[in-house]
Formats: sequence, C-alpha cells, structure tokens
Amino acid sequence: MSPTIPTPANFELHKQLAADTIEVDRWDCCRVLLMNDAAYPWLILVPQRPGVCELHKLSAEDLALTTAEIVRASEAMERLFQPVKMNVAALGNMVPQLHIHVIARFEDDPAWPQPVWGVGPAVPYGAGELAARVEALRGAFSH
Amino acid sequence: MSPTIPTPANFELHKQLAADTIEVDRWDCCRVLLMNDAAYPWLILVPQRPGVCELHKLSAEDLALTTAEIVRASEAMERLFQPVKMNVAALGNMVPQLHIHVIARFEDDPAWPQPVWGVGPAVPYGAGELAARVEALRGAFSH
Repeated sequence: MSPTIPTPANFELHKQLAADTIEVDRWDCCRVLLMNDAAYPWLILVPQRPGVCELHKLSAEDLALTTAEIVRASEAMERLFQPVKMNVAALGNMVPQLHIHVIARFEDDPAWPQPVWGVGPAVPYGAGELAARVEALRGAFSH
Repeated sequence: MSPTIPTPANFELHKQLAADTIEVDRWDCCRVLLMNDAAYPWLILVPQRPGVCELHKLSAEDLALTTAEIVRASEAMERLFQPVKMNVAALGNMVPQLHIHVIARFEDDPAWPQPVWGVGPAVPYGAGELAARVEALRGAFSH
C-alpha cells in the first residue's frame, strides 16, 4: 500500500480538494481521496505531480500509472458497492490541479441519470459513517 | 490514419451516438466522433469493442490504446482551439456503450465553469461550418 515512488517534496494538494475530501490512501502516482459527500461513493485521484493540470501533460509513465490506478479504484468501488455505472472524469474547470473523479452511480442516487456535479450541496458523512467507509475502501483496495 | 487493428465485424455504434455525432476518423481502438453541437469543440471516442461499457472492462492493451487516443485527441484539440481546459469523461449513464467525451472548454462557453452536460439543447453546426470543422480536426490529427 505504501508508494514505491516517493511523492515529490514540492507536491501540495490544492486547498479546495483538501477541504472537500478525506485522504484514504497514497498510491504510486495518485493520492486517493474520498469526497465528503454521502450522496455518492465518490473517490478523487490526484496525481502527485506538481503543476500538472491535464491528463495529456502527464509523462507516459505517470499516465500509465494513473490509468492503472483508475482501474484499481473502479474495481474496488464495483466490488464494494455494486453500482450500475462508474463515472470517470477529469474536468478541473474550477480546481486546476489535475484530479480524476471516480464515482459509483445508482439509479436511485440524487442526480441519476445526470452527472453529479452541481446537483445540490454535498451531504457530509457522519463521523462513524465516515470512518466505516474509509475502512471499507482500504479493505477493498487491498484485495 | 487507417486502423491497423481491424474493427470487430460485430461492433455497432449505439444509435444515440450515431444520431448525435459525425464520424471524423477511425483509430486503432476508437472511432472518433464530433458531437453535433457548435457550442463546444467536443469529440467522443468510442472503443470499437462490442459489449464494453466501462473503461476498466477494456483489456490492458485496449486501455493503453484508448488512453493514447485520448491524448492524441486532446493534443489536437489544444493545438486547434487553444482552450483554457480540456474535459475528459466516461459517464455513460444514458448511453451504456463505452464512450469518452473529450471537450475543449473556454471561459466564455455557455456552461463554464460547470460541465457541459444538461446545459441547454445542442446547437447543430451549419453545413459549411461542419465540413470545415471536420477538415480542421483531420488536419490536426495528422500532425
């Protein structure tokens, strides 16, 4: 679970991402964050590469790592939550630091079948609920 | 420009994607479609693999091809349109066939800074405008 490639010392998580999420894990390329919104199982992967704002600006090696980590996150979410669809997106119109949303979607979630962005304010997890979800995700990642 | 890996004979483009787009090119993995919405430079890449609905269900080889093709599409759009941001997303809540949106975004586009989905009806290209855009994209791809 611990990264084999050290995080560059000058990598700093964008303050908006830090405010909206809880850190779940650190992988070879990406930091794995849980969006603090109980309405959707919603991870955010942030390649720990200072100054990178677009997927196509990652080095070929980092892009391959990031892609593998998107697959790892998607497979873990699928095992854990049995969603009807995974949504994967790198948008970044408001937070320029490259980050990839990996969201498990259900036909009874508040936004279905629309995308999740801009659909009401986030519903923060309760403390116990949050600890349980982080624990469950870590367990699914280590499968 | 012509695919080196033949498209499986049983691949059929989803009828909604066929209705909403114009084919621009066929690459090793993906069919390259232009969304018929003049409000945004908007490509859709569709891996020509029958029955695949999720990025993480592609074979490792096809996922690497698709990722490289997302980069190729993004770089061409960036050269051609100089957007402030590229948006890349695989959602598929309404059209299950795996397809990846690659959209050039601008601070004066109708949805900025929100995502483009669900913001008003598509604005179809005029005939001359459409031909010029397809031509420009093909030129940028062959760079």
